Order: sequence, then structure tokens, then C-alpha cells
Amino acid sequence: MRYRYRSPVENVRLIDRFNVRQQTIGTIYLTSTHLIFIDPEGKRETWILHSLISSVEKLPSNPQGYPLKIRTKHFLSAEFTVPKERDGQDLYFTLLQLRPDSYEKLYCFHYQAPSCLEKIWDPFLLSTEYMRMGCPNREWKIEDINSNFDICDTYPPIIYVPVIASKSMLIGSSKFRSRGRLPVLSYLHPNGASITRCSQSLAGFSARCQEDEQLLQCILKTNTHKNSMCVVDTRPRINAVINRATGKGYENEGYYSNIQFKFCAIENIHTMKNSLQKLIEVCELKNPTMNQYLNGLEKTDWLKHIQTILDTSVFIARAIEIENKNVLVHCSDGWDRTAQTCSIASLLLCPYYRSIYGFRTLIEKEWLSFGHKFSDRCGHMANGDIKEQSPIFLQFIECVWQLTQMYPTTFEFNERYLISLHDHASSCQYGTFIGNCEKDRLDLNVKDRTYSFWNYILQNIGDFKNPLFRAQSIYTGEVLLPNITAQSLRFWLAMYHRFDSALLSKENLTDTLTRIIDHTTALNDHARLLEKRIHEMRDMMIVQNNVEDDDDDEQEQRKVSFIEIDSGLSETEQILNTNEERTIHSTNSDSITSKLSSILRPSDSESGFGGDSPNNLQHSTKSLYNNSTENGSLLLERLALELNSVALDWKSLKSPLRCSCSLAFDSTQRKYNCWRCGEIYCPRCIQLNHPLPGLYSNRHAPVCKTCAKSMKSSPSFVDFTTLIKSKSKEVLRMKPSISIDNKTIINNHSLCSNGTLTDTEIDSPSTLKK
Amino acid sequence: MRYRYRSPVENVRLIDRFNVRQQTIGTIYLTSTHLIFIDPEGKRETWILHSLISSVEKLPSNPQGYPLKIRTKHFLSAEFTVPKERDGQDLYFTLLQLRPDSYEKLYCFHYQAPSCLEKIWDPFLLSTEYMRMGCPNREWKIEDINSNFDICDTYPPIIYVPVIASKSMLIGSSKFRSRGRLPVLSYLHPNGASITRCSQSLAGFSARCQEDEQLLQCILKTNTHKNSMCVVDTRPRINAVINRATGKGYENEGYYSNIQFKFCAIENIHTMKNSLQKLIEVCELKNPTMNQYLNGLEKTDWLKHIQTILDTSVFIARAIEIENKNVLVHCSDGWDRTAQTCSIASLLLCPYYRSIYGFRTLIEKEWLSFGHKFSDRCGHMANGDIKEQSPIFLQFIECVWQLTQMYPTTFEFNERYLISLHDHASSCQYGTFIGNCEKDRLDLNVKDRTYSFWNYILQNIGDFKNPLFRAQSIYTGEVLLPNITAQSLRFWLAMYHRFDSALLSKENLTDTLTRIIDHTTALNDHARLLEKRIHEMRDMMIVQNNVEDDDDDEQEQRKVSFIEIDSGLSETEQILNTNEERTIHSTNSDSITSKLSSILRPSDSESGFGGDSPNNLQHSTKSLYNNSTENGSLLLERLALELNSVALDWKSLKSPLRCSCSLAFDSTQRKYNCWRCGEIYCPRCIQLNHPLPGLYSNRHAPVCKTCAKSMKSSPSFVDFTTLIKSKSKEVLRMKPSISIDNKTIINNHSLCSNGTLTDTEIDSPSTLKK
Repeated sequence: MRYRYRSPVENVRLIDRFNVRQQTIGTIYLTSTHLIFIDPEGKRETWILHSLISSVEKLPSNPQGYPLKIRTKHFLSAEFTVPKERDGQDLYFTLLQLRPDSYEKLYCFHYQAPSCLEKIWDPFLLSTEYMRMGCPNREWKIEDINSNFDICDTYPPIIYVPVIASKSMLIGSSKFRSRGRLPVLSYLHPNGASITRCSQSLAGFSARCQEDEQLLQCILKTNTHKNSMCVVDTRPRINAVINRATGKGYENEGYYSNIQFKFCAIENIHTMKNSLQKLIEVCELKNPTMNQYLNGLEKTDWLKHIQTILDTSVFIARAIEIENKNVLVHCSDGWDRTAQTCSIASLLLCPYYRSIYGFRTLIEKEWLSFGHKFSDRCGHMANGDIKEQSPIFLQFIECVWQLTQMYPTTFEFNERYLISLHDHASSCQYGTFIGNCEKDRLDLNVKDRTYSFWNYILQNIGDFKNPLFRAQSIYTGEVLLPNITAQSLRFWLAMYHRFDSALLSKENLTDTLTRIIDHTTALNDHARLLEKRIHEMRDMMIVQNNVEDDDDDEQEQRKVSFIEIDSGLSETEQILNTNEERTIHSTNSDSITSKLSSILRPSDSESGFGGDSPNNLQHSTKSLYNNSTENGSLLLERLALELNSVALDWKSLKSPLRCSCSLAFDSTQRKYNCWRCGEIYCPRCIQLNHPLPGLYSNRHAPVCKTCAKSMKSSPSFVDFTTLIKSKSKEVLRMKPSISIDNKTIINNHSLCSNGTLTDTEIDSPSTLKK
Repeated sequence: MRYRYRSPVENVRLIDRFNVRQQTIGTIYLTSTHLIFIDPEGKRETWILHSLISSVEKLPSNPQGYPLKIRTKHFLSAEFTVPKERDGQDLYFTLLQLRPDSYEKLYCFHYQAPSCLEKIWDPFLLSTEYMRMGCPNREWKIEDINSNFDICDTYPPIIYVPVIASKSMLIGSSKFRSRGRLPVLSYLHPNGASITRCSQSLAGFSARCQEDEQLLQCILKTNTHKNSMCVVDTRPRINAVINRATGKGYENEGYYSNIQFKFCAIENIHTMKNSLQKLIEVCELKNPTMNQYLNGLEKTDWLKHIQTILDTSVFIARAIEIENKNVLVHCSDGWDRTAQTCSIASLLLCPYYRSIYGFRTLIEKEWLSFGHKFSDRCGHMANGDIKEQSPIFLQFIECVWQLTQMYPTTFEFNERYLISLHDHASSCQYGTFIGNCEKDRLDLNVKDRTYSFWNYILQNIGDFKNPLFRAQSIYTGEVLLPNITAQSLRFWLAMYHRFDSALLSKENLTDTLTRIIDHTTALNDHARLLEKRIHEMRDMMIVQNNVEDDDDDEQEQRKVSFIEIDSGLSETEQILNTNEERTIHSTNSDSITSKLSSILRPSDSESGFGGDSPNNLQHSTKSLYNNSTENGSLLLERLALELNSVALDWKSLKSPLRCSCSLAFDSTQRKYNCWRCGEIYCPRCIQLNHPLPGLYSNRHAPVCKTCAKSMKSSPSFVDFTTLIKSKSKEVLRMKPSISIDNKTIINNHSLCSNGTLTDTEIDSPSTLKK
């Protein structure tokens, strides 16, 4: 343990920057992973992951103690005053030493995830994604010359290049490109136009490379519709010109025929870093005037940079979609601005990337496979070059956010997903964003040693879905070509001011919307089942109902049946009373209904119900009541379960301040309604996939732990289970082809929709809570 | 007809300012009330009310024709190019003459509202509002010295002043205050502190007025908790000082004891007008750079002014709530800045004003009764002084909007309400905002001659509700005291850029939320009814169900009943067959259920249903099945109606581009789902209050005209109606105390919940669609 600091520091003042009068006094704890500030009065806990702390600053001492300022990579800026100078100094020096100096010490290699998260990596295969785009094809082939990272150690082992490009061409071109990053396929549009990406050429003032020129002609020829293509140099022209002096620079237009070159003026990583620094300073202004604030915001140039990146991406997308032209994109090394613009252009062109899974694919391809230097840019390690840190990935995330604001129904994910993505690229909690390229991650063997961020997302998918998403947009191939005006860009409060609760609206609109949609789904599902039951019960009461118009002479005689009810216990009950200690809620109506069902034949036309009932109703009705193993007692028991299992009214998300487990809710936290009792719970107190008998669709739904427990121990549930167990034994003995088990009871609709159950569906109750 | 322009102008180009490449070519029509641009290709119609046109400008002629620029008071800025110069000139001069030069020519005196809007004014009584605040009381009295507008023609006829203030004091003070606007009560807080309002004193450099000084002491003494008060001069100190030179100015602190004076730096109407002018110019910038835009926004000072107004209002609210101090507010004449700050402070202090009706009350009191010069400020008339126009009311509306963004759950109304309010203060469509004070409106007799804006709001209340509103906030007395930081204010895109569809998100989140909440309500209501029906049907199947634990020795013998079903038709059916030409869907189960019901006694404890069923269920169950006039046929008929009448799935608001009536939807328009078929309709195609049998609550719901029609003509509906009619005749003959009529059928739940119907509830079907 290299920390000098050991015990908690008490009576620490936390200064809220938007309400200087309110200082919170609490205790600081430092665990091996987190810095924790506990405010006993507000019962609030602030947990800061060590890896997210970006700077620790000592402010001038004052009479109240030793003040420290901590800034984090997720835009928390906190000022603490430690009462004793010695404690403050200890804390300060300890905090300074937190950042790991080797990969092995990164959080992801020690992180113990909750048991629900498995250490299994769902592998991303680059070839699958290219296959989705239709590659290889007549124009594009897979090339494995980089399988051992020989020609480019920051590229993936397989690359996609024009079919007509020879190996020597590729090797020659890679030698003429900075860091060997030769032009390779990034995205293929359905119209045949493509985005290719690479790094700057090593042209200097006059050098040329025939293989590179040939390779570009090969790329040009992959698009049979156009005899010209476009090279987008995302840098400002002046930067490209300066690079010439160091033997790099840009393509000499004279050597490349039928190619238009365009500079796009996206600034370099240093400018971007400064811009973010200024932005943070503006965000930290204490009660600035409106003019100071707007002036400050303008001077940061942050939104200007966002606009330029978006503009460049729209330019590329337009060239592809409107002009049907191939575009080759590069910047200096082709892993920052190139990654930004290629991925945003792809997002604009291809709706698949706007889905949760597709967005993962996009990041896996453009950022992870093609070697964005996450560890350097996000400053994962203490010994990294501080000049290499830059908010390139953040800018990409913000550009996507700006697009989600312009097109609120076309993205499957929500703001929380983007924020999580940004934070975990820096947090080192998951192995996904560790290292600077695929090779690094292979060398570190992250897949076997760490958890995957994508797995975490999948485990909590409900938290990250955009309730406004229009799923059909994925299938219509909708291309987005927005006009990026200054007026259309917004300042992202929820990212940069997320800890300033006074600034953020108390209501998370997305969660509210998700909750109401879930409620609608639950009610719809339940009502569907209730309607079905009413149809069934009605059918039991109607024996035959053939009504014809008076005009019609063929009016049938109404058929009438006699029903006689036995006295005494039914057969089933007698069996049960001998087998079981507890008496179940059985009634003599068993006999009514079994008698009824034995004589009922549902009529073919359900007159009066106008065909509104689902098609499978008649089928299921028959299967329910013609099945001699079912009887009235079952029906009534099931009804009791069904009616009890879905809450019609749900508590509003606004009402509770804390969960029943005493956890205080804040605005960023996802809260859940229990589908059974309607109350609100934190993620820890809810079981996300519990069976609910009252749903038509047989879906598993979020249920609080109390309800989950009571559903298992309620008399009707137990009795019903026992009843069925004993019954199923009977039945199995008599008719081995029909298997009825617990699952049938809990999800009885699987019986209704399938008619029979297969063996694979037989589960014990414990395994049902998957 | 004074218009020179007569026929439509064709081939007019409308230039979209955010997409200069796209010009729409269409036709301009000028009716007596609207300027209409019809774009036959886009099938879009732009209707501009004459009274909303704020300026018409001739741009330099170009080869394409005679270009005109029109700006409206609701921030539409349109450039038309008329192909023929002559046409253009005609149109130009005609448009210039549109503004009326007398009150009588205002739109409200000619406007013909749709038939659903009545010309009845729901009178606002100032005394009712003061009574709500607890006035008159021991400290405050009603004073009628202004009943003939003698001492102040811009004040209401009744005013509220301290009990101990004498008439001579009031008259003396009014003579010492600009335009006679003496200090009067504006708002009384539950803690006894009050807001009073007046105009500046006519103090010049040294004048004093003992009556005024005494009146302020009387006001001070109304608050028994504090022996000091605060006078808020909302102007910048420099403005107040300059006013001294003209014999006006501010109170001399030396003459008033125990009073703190504070200046609040809200600029005058001319500065505000310039600021808005600059804001409009920034909004009209064609593709500005980010820096131009942010710089421009900063230079307008618009958000700075908004911040100052809000800051001043929060200052007043804090003095009242935290310091329990009386506050007297004034500016120069006490009808602009005073109206803004008094009303916003009241809104912060009193949750009532945050409801739809309460907000009306606030505007009636602070703006209409206390004489904000709507006609002058909004430029209703051609002969008004253009210098008097100023966006004072708009600023108030925007301040409220900023608050709604900070507190999204505490306001009952939505953004559309605020925008409507702003627009109709200028549109002159309703009499509500006509004239400069109450006296003007009385002289013009607007209440008899025009429609009321508030009536229009009430008629369309569903369009203006905030779906996130937490109703209980009204009753908790929640006071809002926000910290108005620069970061917390936003630019109001939906107000100033509302016609720039490229800038606004395509999805109206509020409407989406409202729709989903409505859907949830419908499903909840329907599911409640279905559960009730299942309970009832279940009760018909269970005769007696007394289950006890095995441990219990007193286990009852299960009671079993014999049920015998008759063959042939029931009595009721025989009656019906002779009375009616059409055969109804009756079945022999009539007999089953009538027999069943005659022997059924619902058990007191519904075992297995865990008390989840509403309390009134047992009662209604009894009333349904013990009532001998009901029978199984009725039950089944009702079930058919009920199951058919509520759509489980609703169409998404995003899907349709136009209504079935071919009206094209745009993002600002409210759309409705029909509760019966789930399809989407425009307001013209929906009946907002139609009875739906499938709802437990008996509520009337939005139903499309087709469904409304089909529900009336569907066989089951007609048959059922006829059946009940004939039955009711029978029953009435036999038992005159029970009356069953059409209402019972359409809203049969009124029977369930009440047991019996009163005579007043008997309505013909036509009057049911209230």
C-alpha cells in the first residue's frame, strides 16, 4: 500500500459551486478504488473512481483549513476544505499518487463486477460487419497481409482493399503513409460509393509514391458509377502545409488524376484540448453575468469545433449519398479526426449504426479496430505523455448527441448511453477501451482478464434505450443530411454540468417517458389477457348462439343444454385432500366448469365481438376448455393469480426521495416501477426478469424483491403449485405426452399459445429468474 | 374595400432562410383577415393573420421579380419574390394599409369563432382573487374610491389598501404618484407579508408628500412581524435619477422611516425593444459562424434582461418568504417592469398561480386590472406611437418559460399555452387583451362584443396541459426560489425559431408524453372494468367458497348448490321477440345466469383475490346480479360493447403525415388518438367527449367521427338500445322507482357505481355528447 493517507478525514467542507452559501460538512474516505465523500446530513454519498480523477490542486490555505480542488474526467469539480493541515497534506499527496504507472495496475484488471455481469466477451468480428456491408464482393476483398501487424501495428489484422490492388501496391502505399496506415475500406454504401481511410502521405515537398497513386486509382475504380473521387484532408490547409516541412504533409494533386482534394479545417488535438480546458473554466465560473458567460462560451470555440466536425462529416455523407462519389479521408495519423468524421459520416449514412448494437459495431470498427489511442487520449496512465491527452472521443460523442437532438426518433440509444460511453472510455473499469490499438489489447489479453463494457450495457439495456426511437427507421435506410447551422447546436448541460443539480431539471424526461411506455405496455398486455379470459368465460356461458335476422326463414332453434351439478367434493379435490396437508381454494364450481367445458364447443363465429379478438383465441379457448386435464378450480386459481399480478396504478417517478432500501435517489439514477405492486425501486431492489402470470405475452417483467418473494410464498401460489404438481404426476402417469410443470402455472400462456409444452420448457422456479 | 390588391399572385417564391437552395414556389392570397401562401407541391399552407404582421419591407428588385420581406409578431420572417413588379407593388402597398386605425376595426370585433366556442365571458372578479388570499381582513380592506376611475383611470374600480389608511391619505398619495397610481395591495402571502405596487413618486429633487409617507407606514404596519419594509425600484438608479429632472424620480429616503430602498436595474421599454430587434436580427442570420452567432446573442443582451427581471423577482420573493418583509414595487409608471416583477414574484411564492386557471388569474390581476398597456405595447393600431411598442409581456412570458424549464413538474400549463398567450396578446382575435386598461375594455364593451381568450383556452384545455405536472404541488404551498445563474437560462428556440423547422426537433415531446399518458389512462380504465367483469363472472361460477386451514378444526362443510337450466326461451326474450322486429343476440345462457344470479350470494371475503379489488366491487356485483331486471343477455351484450370500445394499441404520433381528412400535420399541431380505434386524427376529425362503455370510470373520451358514428349504428348497439328501451318500459310499468334509459346503456357503469339512477341522469343520446 503506497498511500500515505489511511483513516477517514472528518468535518470536511464541500463547497457547492452554485450556492456558495451552502457548504456541506462530511467525511472523506479513500478506498483502494474510490474517493468517497459522505454527507451525513443530506445522506448523500459522492463516489469518485480513482481513475476518473483528472487533477488535484492545492488552493491557498485559509482559516478554515487546507483546501483542495479535485477535477474529474466526468466534469465533477469539487472544492474540499480539510480542517487539519496535516490531514489535508496527506490526502493531497495520496491523491497525487493514485494514477497507475503500468497497464497491469489499471482498474479493469482488479475490478470485481456484480455477480450478474459475466466475464464473457461477446466477440466483435470485423469480418461480420464487412459482410453486413456486402464485402468481400466484386470490388473489395479481404487482405491478411497485416495478420501479424507487420505492415501497420495500429490497424486490425484483416483489412479490406480493392480486389485489383496487389500486395506490393499495399506495402508500397503503407510505406508512403504515416505510421504505415495505408488507405483501407471503412464504409461501403448501398449505392456502391465508399469511405476509405488512411493517414497523411509522407510527401514532404515533392516526394511521390507510385504504389500509393495506383492504390487510389484502384479505390476510384471500385465505384463504377463515377470516374472521379474525393480526398478529404480533415485538417486546416495550414496544418497540412506545415507538416510538409517534417517530410509528411498531403498528396501532391499533380500526381493523382481524377481526384478532388479538400481541406476541412478541423483543428488538432492540442487545440481541442485547450478548447475543452476553457470550456471547463467557463462551466466553473461562479455566478457569471450573462455577457461573461456567453462571451466565455464563444471564446472556448468548443461549439465551433463541434460544428466543423459535423460539417465535415455531412460533407462526406453528401458526397457518398448525393454525388455517389468515393471519399478517402485522412488527417495526420488518421486516428483522431479521421475516426471522428468517418464514424459520424457512417452514422448519417447508415441507420444500422444508430441502433444500440450498431453503434457498438461502429465504435469497434472505426475507433477500436483502426487504433484510436484511447489510453493516450484519455490519460489512463501516470506515465503517459500529458500532451497526448485530448477530448477526441468526447467530441465524437457530443457530435452524436447533437444529432440525437436534431433527430430524436432515429437513435435507439439515449443520452445516458452516450455519457456512459464517454465515462467508461476514461474509467478503465472495463477492458474494452484499454490500450492504444487492437494489438495492445491482444497483448494484454483483456478478453480473458477483464469485463466488457458492451456486456455491461447489454445487462442494463433498459437504462440506455431511447423511448422515442422509431424502430422502422433502421429498415428504411434513412440517410440524415442535416444543415449544421450555429443555431442548431446546443450546449450539452447534461454532460458538462451534470453535477450542478441546480442547473439540471429535476425530471429526467427520458426516464419518465420510458416509465410511462412501460406502464402502457404492462396494461396493454394485461388487458389483452383479461379480454381473453372474458371471452373464455363468456364462451362457457353460451352454449350455442346462432342468431339470424328475422327476415331469414332458416332461423335455427337455439340449442339448450342441461347442466347438473354434483354435490360433494370433486375427484381432484379428493386426491388433493389425501395428498396434501394444506387445503387449496377449490370450490364446487370445479364441477360446474368441468361439466360446462365437457359440453362446450366454442362457436365458429363469435357474434357480437366483431372479430376484434385475436385469431388464436378460438384455438386457445378450445385448448383450455376441451383439455380434460384443466378444470374450473384451475381456472379460478389462475384467475386469482392473474388478477393479482399486475398493478393498474404505478407510482410516479417524482414521488419517492429514496428507495425502500434507504438509498437516496438522484436525478441521474434509473428507477423502476415494480409491475406487480407499482411501487418504485432502485436497480438493486428490483428483479428485472420475473414471470408475471397476468400478462398475455408471457413476457418476464421487473418485479420488486418483496413481490417476487410473496408471489412464491402466497397461499394461492403454493397451493396451485402443489395442486399442479400432484396433478401433473397423475397426468404424466396417464398421458406421458403431456407435461405440465411449474412453468405452465407461472407462464400459463405458453400453454395457450402453443397448445402443448415441449420438454425444454420445463424449468424449476429458481431457474426461471434468469 | 381599401385594398388595391385583389387577385391571387401566382408563382411567388418563398425563400426558406435556413436552406437558401430550396425555394418554394406557390400562390399568395389575401383575404380580409389573412395573408395566405399556398405551396401546391409541398401541400403546405401558411396562414398569417393581418394583425400579426409587424412589418413589410421592399427589398431591392432582382431579375426574378419584386422581393418583399414580411416580419410578424410571432417571429415569422418570410421573403417572397413576386414575379411581376406591378403585382409586387400592389401587394406591398396593400399590406402596408392593413393595420386598423381605430379600435372598432380590430379583428376581435369581426372575428367569427367556430361554433364550439361561445361568446360567453367567464367573468374574472378581482374580489374573488383577493378573497382567496384572505382579503379583506384585519389589515387590508376593499376601497371603492376609484369606482368611477376618478383617482386613477388605469387602476381597477376596486383596490385593496391598509385598513388604517384614510381616504385623504389615498387621494393625497395618488396625487404624489405618477398617473395617480398609488400603492395598493398586489399579493398577500400566508405569512402576512405582502407585495404592494405603485408608480414612481413625483418627488423631483425635494418634494415630499405626507399622505404618501403615511400610507407607506400604514402598509408597513399591516405586517405585524416586521418593523421595516422594502421598496424595490425596479429601474437602474441612473434612470430614476434622470427622472428627477422632470419632477418625478424616486422617494427621498430621509422622509420615509424604517424603509430600505433598492434599485434593480431592469432597463426601460426602449432598451428592451432594441434588444428584441437585435435578437430577431441574430435569428435571421443566414448560416452564421458559431462565433458570430454566440457573439450576436451576447450583444443583444436579451438573456441578460431576462436574467435581471428574474433576479429582481426572486429578490422580492425572498424578502417575502425568507425575511417575512413587506415589499412595495414600482418602476416609472408602474405598469411594465412592476407588472413583470410583481407577477413573477407571485408565481414563485404561490403555487396556485402555476395552475392553468391560477395563471389566468395572475394575468387578469397584475396585467389587465392594473393596466398594462397591451394595445400600445403590442402595437394593435396603425395610429399608435411606435415608440410605445415594447416586448414587455413577451419578456414576462419568457421568464415564466425559463421557470418551467427549471421546474418541469410544477406548472400545469405547457409551452404551447405560453406561446398562445403571447401570440393572442398581439393577434387581436379575442377581446381579452384589447385596450390599455380595464376602463378601455369597459368603454369598448368587449365582454358583449368579442370572444374571450380564456374561453378559447378552456375549450382546448387538453392542448395546453403539461403532462409532467405534479398536481399536489398546488396544495403543498411550495415556494420556488431559484438561483438565476447565466448557465441556467436557455435560448427559447420554440418561440423565436418556431418557423425554422430545420432547427426544431421533429418530435413534440410534450405531445408525445401526453399521448402516452392518455393511452395509459385508457388502458388502466379499461383493465379496471375488465377485472371487475371477471370478478363478476367468477362470482357467478362460485356459489360458496369457504376455505379454512387444515389446522382449523371448525372447517365448514362446503355448500353446494344444484343448478338446473331450463330449455327454451326466457321470459324476457319472449317479450322481446314479440315487441321487436330485429332479433337480438340473446342466448339460453340468459337462463343460466338469471338462475345463477338468483341463487348467488357473493361471499364477503373474496379469497385468493387478496383484497386487490376495489371496495365498491362487492356492492356493484350484488346490484348487477341480484337485480332481477338484469339478465345474462344484457351481460353478454354489454360485454360485447365493452370489449369493442377501447383500442389496446394506439398508433404512434410519428407515423401519419396527414389526417384522414387530408390535412397535413406539422410539428406544432396537436394530434389525437381515437380511444376506440387507436388511429390518429386532427382536432377537426375527433369528438373530444364521447361516451365509451369499456371504461370503468364512466369518463367520456376522444373518439374519431367514424367510430362515433359506427358505435351508434352498430347492430349490437342498436339492438341493445332497443332491448333496453322495451325492457325499461316493462320495468317502469312494473316498478316505477327504477328508471333505466339510454344512459344506462352507454354509460352502464353509472348504474354499477350508484346502484340506481336518478331522474336527472336520464338523457337522450344526443345530449350525452356534451
